Amino acid sequence: MLFVVILTYSDSVSESIKEKRARLLENAKINVSEAYSKMDHPLIQAFATFTENERMINQMNEKLEEWYSMYFPELKTGSPKSYATFVSEFGNDKRSANAKDLERIFDEHAKHIAKVAEESMGGDPEEKEYALLKSIAEEELRLIELNDKILVYIKEGTERLMPNITGIIDYKVAAELLSKAGSVEKLALMPASTIQLLGAEKALFKHLKFGSKPPKYGALFKLQEIANANREDRGRIARVYATKLAIAARADAFSKNYIADRLNEDLKKALSRDRKHGNQNKK
Amino acid sequence: MLFVVILTYSDSVSESIKEKRARLLENAKINVSEAYSKMDHPLIQAFATFTENERMINQMNEKLEEWYSMYFPELKTGSPKSYATFVSEFGNDKRSANAKDLERIFDEHAKHIAKVAEESMGGDPEEKEYALLKSIAEEELRLIELNDKILVYIKEGTERLMPNITGIIDYKVAAELLSKAGSVEKLALMPASTIQLLGAEKALFKHLKFGSKPPKYGALFKLQEIANANREDRGRIARVYATKLAIAARADAFSKNYIADRLNEDLKKALSRDRKHGNQNKK
Repeated sequence: MLFVVILTYSDSVSESIKEKRARLLENAKINVSEAYSKMDHPLIQAFATFTENERMINQMNEKLEEWYSMYFPELKTGSPKSYATFVSEFGNDKRSANAKDLERIFDEHAKHIAKVAEESMGGDPEEKEYALLKSIAEEELRLIELNDKILVYIKEGTERLMPNITGIIDYKVAAELLSKAGSVEKLALMPASTIQLLGAEKALFKHLKFGSKPPKYGALFKLQEIANANREDRGRIARVYATKLAIAARADAFSKNYIADRLNEDLKKALSRDRKHGNQNKK
Repeated sequence: MLFVVILTYSDSVSESIKEKRARLLENAKINVSEAYSKMDHPLIQAFATFTENERMINQMNEKLEEWYSMYFPELKTGSPKSYATFVSEFGNDKRSANAKDLERIFDEHAKHIAKVAEESMGGDPEEKEYALLKSIAEEELRLIELNDKILVYIKEGTERLMPNITGIIDYKVAAELLSKAGSVEKLALMPASTIQLLGAEKALFKHLKFGSKPPKYGALFKLQEIANANREDRGRIARVYATKLAIAARADAFSKNYIADRLNEDLKKALSRDRKHGNQNKK
């Protein structure tokens, strides 16, 4: 009798575990699809792909330049896009490129490059080889085009998802903050000091562990307003931005009100007030 | 009077230096264009680009998989090409893919993947997001196509430049040996033992510096005949190949005779003789 009871008992337990497991799995599925149905995730993926592609475009151009420099070692353009465009259009016969044709690619440097092409010590690649070089250059140009498309998507997405944050700062920096935080909600729950240092994790760790100088900004350094400021002002400006960003993030995540205009005004005021203080401190 | 003489003297010296410089520059130009007019250099560049592209295709696919796995976490294909093809054709509505459609992409796994798509816990991406995913997948497929073209170029080029070497070993390994050596002439001047270890420079350095085990093969390891052999036979087989390759390289670089058929026979004999010796040694 006891035996039977135990059996029944164990049976009902395993039954309930099964049920529980099914319920939990179902819950997990719903949670996952909910998390994924938000804009945050595609934006984070898009930003990661954009960053990776940037690296890839540079790598591709490096290889192209290494190869084509056999035929035109004097060509220096400074931009992967103009290099690849030159190879794809004039790579088989560089001396045929006159300054007028080249203006489309090189603007004011066109004349100089036409002259350099004229006097180049390199020959021209043979037909089959050039077919490859052209394909590689075109592939690179398409990758550049693709990345421009991804950037448009990121711009639209961040402006829709974070109207207040993108109302204050550049959308690329906004996308990077979002990527570091994981979601707008998580960003909104961070104190300003954390937002200020998002993207400076390594430097922060070094500071805590080895006592090196503490970082003053992370991703925010990419803001023109900070990058172009005097070195001694940057930390202060980053702090002001971080404070306003924390407020903007909360509006974006929770209240959904548009307060960016007001925040921008506050930002201006805070920056000019801060500047005065800074100057006083120096006296 | 003396003054004038000195002036004339110094003038004639600077003149002759200028001339010398011009002549040397001219020589250098000729040397460089001669070196570059050979097949070696484009082949080496093509091989470097091919290797880099392979890495890039994997990186791109990693990012694509990371992103699209939000919508179809169960999809595992094992090949970047089939993954990208699936995303570009069915990524907006994975449940619409029936087993017959999928056969083209996945062969015998088509049925399984159709079933997995049916039961997937993921949703489908919204239109704009899918447009990007599709563009990325198509870009990846084009990069794969480009690399196939580069491979055809490498095959034709190595067979033309090194008929004897490619008569003995796979053309991709031949291209790698060429890349490591710098030119067919340089390869032809190497002793067999150096050819055997081309591509194992790091391991060789470690051996010489730290006394770790000496390497037995470098790029040659990619030969099926060596990779598939028993571990204890590999070194011996690599040595036999290297010996024949050294002879083949000399024929390719200097005599230009086609001796690959004879070399292949010798190779077979040497391998079977060697095997006997190897077995005797073990007794």
